[in-house]
Amino acid sequence: MDPVELLLAVEEIKQLKYRYLRTLDLKCWDDFAEVFVPSATGDYGEGLSFGSRDELVDFMRASLGPRMLTLHQCHHPEIVVDGDRATGVWYLEDKVLMPDHRLVLEGAAFYEDRYVRTGEGWRIEHTGYRRTYEATVSMDDVPSYTLTIGKAYA
Amino acid sequence: MDPVELLLAVEEIKQLKYRYLRTLDLKCWDDFAEVFVPSATGDYGEGLSFGSRDELVDFMRASLGPRMLTLHQCHHPEIVVDGDRATGVWYLEDKVLMPDHRLVLEGAAFYEDRYVRTGEGWRIEHTGYRRTYEATVSMDDVPSYTLTIGKAYA
Amino acid sequence: MDPVELLLAVEEIKQLKYRYLRTLDLKCWDDFAEVFVPSATGDYGEGLSFGSRDELVDFMRASLGPRMLTLHQCHHPEIVVDGDRATGVWYLEDKVLMPDHRLVLEGAAFYEDRYVRTGEGWRIEHTGYRRTYEATVSMDDVPSYTLTIGKAYA
Repeated sequence: MDPVELLLAVEEIKQLKYRYLRTLDLKCWDDFAEVFVPSATGDYGEGLSFGSRDELVDFMRASLGPRMLTLHQCHHPEIVVDGDRATGVWYLEDKVLMPDHRLVLEGAAFYEDRYVRTGEGWRIEHTGYRRTYEATVSMDDVPSYTLTIGKAYA
Repeated sequence: MDPVELLLAVEEIKQLKYRYLRTLDLKCWDDFAEVFVPSATGDYGEGLSFGSRDELVDFMRASLGPRMLTLHQCHHPEIVVDGDRATGVWYLEDKVLMPDHRLVLEGAAFYEDRYVRTGEGWRIEHTGYRRTYEATVSMDDVPSYTLTIGKAYA
Repeated sequence: MDPVELLLAVEEIKQLKYRYLRTLDLKCWDDFAEVFVPSATGDYGEGLSFGSRDELVDFMRASLGPRMLTLHQCHHPEIVVDGDRATGVWYLEDKVLMPDHRLVLEGAAFYEDRYVRTGEGWRIEHTGYRRTYEATVSMDDVPSYTLTIGKAYA
């Protein structure tokens, strides 16, 4: 593969992943759907798996309402491109703030994705991760905990 | 635009942003000033906006003394280059440790920057973000909280 | 240096660093050893320094058992390539969860690495960092703290 094409593909796949994460945390579900091919599958461990894009997107839309503040940041892209297919390993750090449940969750995981180049650019064909750790804390243990800003996308 | 020039511009703009964040957290204010053009503007939301580089730098220098430990890490660069201009979306995670106020602040935001290519390389023309969330906790709720190292740049 | 070769070298060095961090947190010590040249040195500050790859790897293997959950994520690569040598500045965020000691440590640091191109690709010749801050909290102050997942690599 031509090295310049390879570098461009790697950059495009990174931006695809960033769009997936940005639209997830901003709850822009229509834009979120567009990063996947319709047949995309997902597997977030602990039995949370999806057989199609629509299943995955509907679940996120239903689960992550305006009172669930999420942060999903992915690091350390190890992208391997093979023609119109690619794989990607990423290191996730995530937080979920659930003020209604007085709960903060944080964790980390390694993503293993598969990508495919379509007529409209690279898309996610499979996404999934395995956690290295996950922890929860009740806000009741830290009564001073104050969400000073969290309505940007409410 | 030639794809190699494009890739080089993207890499240079990323390094410019990293210099901005590194010199901010290390409080190297003279180096921090150099990442901006003199006419640069800034808008960090909640009314915190600046009409020039000097205004912005002077504010940071005055606000972030040695007893304010900050972490500003930016992720997910979505850089779009158009000749000698470029835009960048980034996903910030930040923390501010204020031992004198017994306070820890943490949050996240999406940056939207504008860059311009000058005779000395790419510079920031506008920087600003909108928060997705921000939370504070008093160290008094976690009396064991101990800053074991924090004087690297004191 | 040819700009395409430069961009490829930068991408390879990033992936080398990600492999170092991934194998560290997944405790894959044999793979971890392979990112270094045998003569590699390390200096993590506070007197924690190593004169060879084996010294460094043996220390990590002995110190980071299955009940020490670690997160090491590096950001903001500022890589400078000069032929078959390169330097890299990175911004680390790390956490260490020590359930047996009821302790959580978190901190940040700036890495300054040196890399060398060998017959098998880029390797780490020197790695080291200086912390900007480090803090510890006892889990006893937040009795609800629950490690819900943390055995992926146990």
